[in-house]
Amino acid sequence: MAKDMGMTVKKAEDFSKWYLEVVQKAEIMDSRYGIKGFPVYLPTAMTAIKQIENAFEKSLESTGHKPTNFPVLIPEKYMKKEKSHIKSFEKEVFWITHAGKNKLDERLCLRPTSETAMYPLYSLWIRSHMHLPMKLYQTVSVYRYETKMTKPLIRGREFRWIEAHTAQKSYKDAIKQVEEDMKIFEDIVVDKLALPFLLLKRPDWDRFAGAEESYAYDCAMPDGKVLQIGTTHNLGEKFAKVFDVTYLDSNDKKKYVNQTSFGPGIARILGALISVHGDDKGLILPPPIAPVQVVIVPIYTNKIKKEKTGIMKLCGRIQGILEENKIRVHLDDREGYSPGFKFHDHELKGVPLRIEIGPNDVKNNQIIMVRRDTLEKIPVPINELEKKVLESFDDTMLNLKRKAETLLNVKDVDGYSELKKGLKIGGIYRIEFCNNEKCAEKLKKDTGAEVRGYLFNKNEKISKKKCDICGKQAKAIAYVAKAY
Amino acid sequence: MAKDMGMTVKKAEDFSKWYLEVVQKAEIMDSRYGIKGFPVYLPTAMTAIKQIENAFEKSLESTGHKPTNFPVLIPEKYMKKEKSHIKSFEKEVFWITHAGKNKLDERLCLRPTSETAMYPLYSLWIRSHMHLPMKLYQTVSVYRYETKMTKPLIRGREFRWIEAHTAQKSYKDAIKQVEEDMKIFEDIVVDKLALPFLLLKRPDWDRFAGAEESYAYDCAMPDGKVLQIGTTHNLGEKFAKVFDVTYLDSNDKKKYVNQTSFGPGIARILGALISVHGDDKGLILPPPIAPVQVVIVPIYTNKIKKEKTGIMKLCGRIQGILEENKIRVHLDDREGYSPGFKFHDHELKGVPLRIEIGPNDVKNNQIIMVRRDTLEKIPVPINELEKKVLESFDDTMLNLKRKAETLLNVKDVDGYSELKKGLKIGGIYRIEFCNNEKCAEKLKKDTGAEVRGYLFNKNEKISKKKCDICGKQAKAIAYVAKAY
Repeated sequence: MAKDMGMTVKKAEDFSKWYLEVVQKAEIMDSRYGIKGFPVYLPTAMTAIKQIENAFEKSLESTGHKPTNFPVLIPEKYMKKEKSHIKSFEKEVFWITHAGKNKLDERLCLRPTSETAMYPLYSLWIRSHMHLPMKLYQTVSVYRYETKMTKPLIRGREFRWIEAHTAQKSYKDAIKQVEEDMKIFEDIVVDKLALPFLLLKRPDWDRFAGAEESYAYDCAMPDGKVLQIGTTHNLGEKFAKVFDVTYLDSNDKKKYVNQTSFGPGIARILGALISVHGDDKGLILPPPIAPVQVVIVPIYTNKIKKEKTGIMKLCGRIQGILEENKIRVHLDDREGYSPGFKFHDHELKGVPLRIEIGPNDVKNNQIIMVRRDTLEKIPVPINELEKKVLESFDDTMLNLKRKAETLLNVKDVDGYSELKKGLKIGGIYRIEFCNNEKCAEKLKKDTGAEVRGYLFNKNEKISKKKCDICGKQAKAIAYVAKAY
Repeated sequence: MAKDMGMTVKKAEDFSKWYLEVVQKAEIMDSRYGIKGFPVYLPTAMTAIKQIENAFEKSLESTGHKPTNFPVLIPEKYMKKEKSHIKSFEKEVFWITHAGKNKLDERLCLRPTSETAMYPLYSLWIRSHMHLPMKLYQTVSVYRYETKMTKPLIRGREFRWIEAHTAQKSYKDAIKQVEEDMKIFEDIVVDKLALPFLLLKRPDWDRFAGAEESYAYDCAMPDGKVLQIGTTHNLGEKFAKVFDVTYLDSNDKKKYVNQTSFGPGIARILGALISVHGDDKGLILPPPIAPVQVVIVPIYTNKIKKEKTGIMKLCGRIQGILEENKIRVHLDDREGYSPGFKFHDHELKGVPLRIEIGPNDVKNNQIIMVRRDTLEKIPVPINELEKKVLESFDDTMLNLKRKAETLLNVKDVDGYSELKKGLKIGGIYRIEFCNNEKCAEKLKKDTGAEVRGYLFNKNEKISKKKCDICGKQAKAIAYVAKAY
C-alpha cells in the first residue's frame, strides 16, 4: 500500500497511465503478486466491491433469486457436454491435473462461468412445473486464461462477478427474465453508480457459447473504447437438452426448461466507475456505494490544547448527527498527519464529501463542506447539516451522470471512409448494416473496431438502406466501437 | 432440492445418518456434484452462511481489520518458502499444471490457507512502524485434498472460511491480537449461535505449520467427538523471516514484524450448529442469525372467501409490525400447499418462530406463536406481539445454550484404564499429562482419541502429579477426546 502522495499523470493526457496510477495509489489493486493477471484486491476496492455486490444481491433476492455456491472446479466431462461451449472456452481454462502427489483420473478446470457446473444439478432438482421458475445466484470469482494484455479490474485471469441462472417454463418466461435482469442492472448501475451504458443485442456471431440470444451492457470509456460490464443470455433449451433439464407441465407432459444466465461483471463495473468518474486527483466514488460517504477532518495546531478539544467535540457531534441519519461517516483523527495530507488521501480514494472543522467553525457554529467532484468549499450552518449533505449527494450524482453521458455520445456517419476516420479518434458510431459477419470482420481488420450489436427493443429504422461498410442492402442499425 | 417430506432418522439413534438426512432435506448441501468432497451449498446453507460471515466481517472491521481478496492460486515457489508449511500441506494441495493448451512454467496450487500468498505482499507494503499493525481479512473458500471420509460442511475439499492476517510490532502485540480474535469468536459463536466451546492451546506437535503457538476452538458434537471450528495462531517472526517482512521502528532500527492468523471455519461452524441444535424434526437456527426469524402461516379453507380475506389482512398486519421492529419475517402465502405441509417445511429448515393465523384468531384479535425449539403453542394478543416475539428469541437462545452446554460436559478420570473405558463411549476428558508426544501417540493408537491441548490462560493446577497415560511426572492438565 504505497504511501507516495498524490497523482502525477493527467487523465486527459494519458488515460491508460493515469488508470494504472490511480489503481495503485488509491489502494485498489496490487499487480505485484507472483502470477500474471492475478492481482490482489486491496481494501478500497474490496469495500467498494462489497457495496456493489450487496446492491445486486439485494435486488436479486427481492426478485426471488436465492443464494448458492457451486464448486470452483468443473469436471472435464461436464465442460465438454455442450459442444460450442467447450470450443469457446477450451483455450481459456486452467486445468487441475494433480492433488497432493496423485495424478487425478479426470482433469478438473477452474470455473470460467458456471452453466456446466450448475445444470447437471438443475436436472436432478427440477421435476415439476411447481419447481419453476428456479432462480439461483452466486457471488464468486471466475477464471480465464487471458492471453491479451491484462489490466487490473478490466481484463484479468481471476475476476469477481455475480452469476444468476434461472430455469423457466417457456421461452416467453425466459424473455421476461431477461427483461427483469436488465431492470436490475439499470437500477443499480445507472441510479446508484451514475454509469450510463448501451444495452445491445450482440450479433449472432458474437453470442455467448450456448445462448440463443446475448445482450450486453457496454459502457463508454474515456479513451473512446467501450467496455462490456455485464451480460444477460437467453439460453433457450440449448443447455436443457444437453443436461436433460426437464419438467412435467400441468398436463403431465414432459418439457425442456428454458434457461437464462445473467452476469453483472462486478470487477469491470468497478473498473468502469474508476475510469469514468475519476479525475486528476484520484477516484470519485458515487455516494450511494461509497464505503465512506463523508470524512471529517479536524484542523488544529497542536500547540493550543484548548482549541483542539473544542474542535474534536464539534467533530464528534457532527459524526453523531450523520450516523443517526444513516450516513457512512469516518472521523479521521489520525495523529501525526497534517490536514493537507488527509485531504489528499481522501481525495485520492474518492470519498464524495469532506467536512473540515477548524477553530473559526467552532466559533461560528458551522462546518466547511467540500464536494469531491467539484472541490468547492461551502460553509454550512450546523442546523442545516443533514439537508445540505443529502443535497450534495444528489448534486454529485447528477453531475457524475451528466459527465458520464457526454462520454456515451453516439455519432452517426455517412459511408465507410467517414466511419474509418471517426474510429481513428475513437467513440461509438451508429451505422446502417447488412448483418453480415464478413463486413464485421472487414471492419475489425481495417480499424480494430467491432460491430457491438443492435439497440435492445428499439428496432431502429434504417433510412439510407445501404450498409455503411459494403454498400449492399442494409438490414438494421448497428453500433460500432473499439472495445476492451 | 428434495421435496420428500420430513425426517425419518432419529438423532439419538444414529447421529451420522440423521446429519446426512437433515443436510439433504433441509436443503443445506447437495453431495451429488461430480467431484468427491465438492458439494453444492444450497440456499438454506448460503443464507445462514451469509449471516454468520456478516457477523464476523462486522466484528473484524470494528476492530480495524480491512477486507481484501488475494488470488486463489499460489505459485509453488511461495508455498515452498516456509519448510514446515509446505511439508504439512504438500499432500493436500490441488495443482494447476495447464492453462488452455499450454503447460505452465511453474505449478500453481489452489490456496489451502493464505499465509504464503499474502506475506510476500506484506513484505512490499510494510516499511515503517507507522504501517503497523496491519490487519487484513478475506472471506473465501480454501481447498484441501482430504483423503479421510468427507462429510458435508464438516470435512470437505472446498470449504468456506474467513482468514484474518495481521502484522504487529512485537510479540506482545501479537498476543494481544490473539486475545482480540478470541473475543470476536466468543462474542459471535457463543452469544449469537449458542455454541459453547473449549478454547485450547494445542500441544507443540499439533501446531499449525509455521506457528509459534496455535489456539483452537473445539466444540462438542452429539456423537461424543469434538470438532475444531476455528483457530488462531501466533506466528511470531517465523513467516516474517522467511518472507522478509520488516519495518523500521521509531529509532530507525530494522525489525521483523510479528504475525498472527485467525481462521473462523464458517462451514464447520454451520455444521456444528446443525449438529448441536437440530432435533428429529430438522434444523433449529438461533434467532440472531436465522435468515428468516419468524414465518407467518395463514390457516383457512378455500371455500370461505370472506374468511380468507380477513386472515390475510391480519397476516399482513402482523408482518408489517414485525418488519417495523426489524425482525426478519416471511409470510408463507404459497397457494396449493396445506398449512401442515408448511409447518413441516419451516420446522425442517429451522425457522425459530412460527405464527399461525386462523379464523378464530381474527375473531379474538390474537395469533398463535409456536417456538421451534419447544414446539409449544401459545396464543398471544396482538398488542403484546413484539414483546412476546423478542422474549421467545431470548428464551430460545437460553434453551439452546443450556442444551449445548450439557454436550460440553468435561469429565475427570483416574488412570489410563478408566480413560480408555470412558473414551469408548465418547466425550471429553480432563487428564494429568506429562506433555510427551509419545504418550499422545500411544493414546491415539489405543483409543483413537487425541490430546487436544490445554485450557487457554487458565493454568490449571495438577494435583496427583502423575500422567494419566504413562504414570510418570505430570506437568499439566490436558483435554482428551476423539475428534473429527
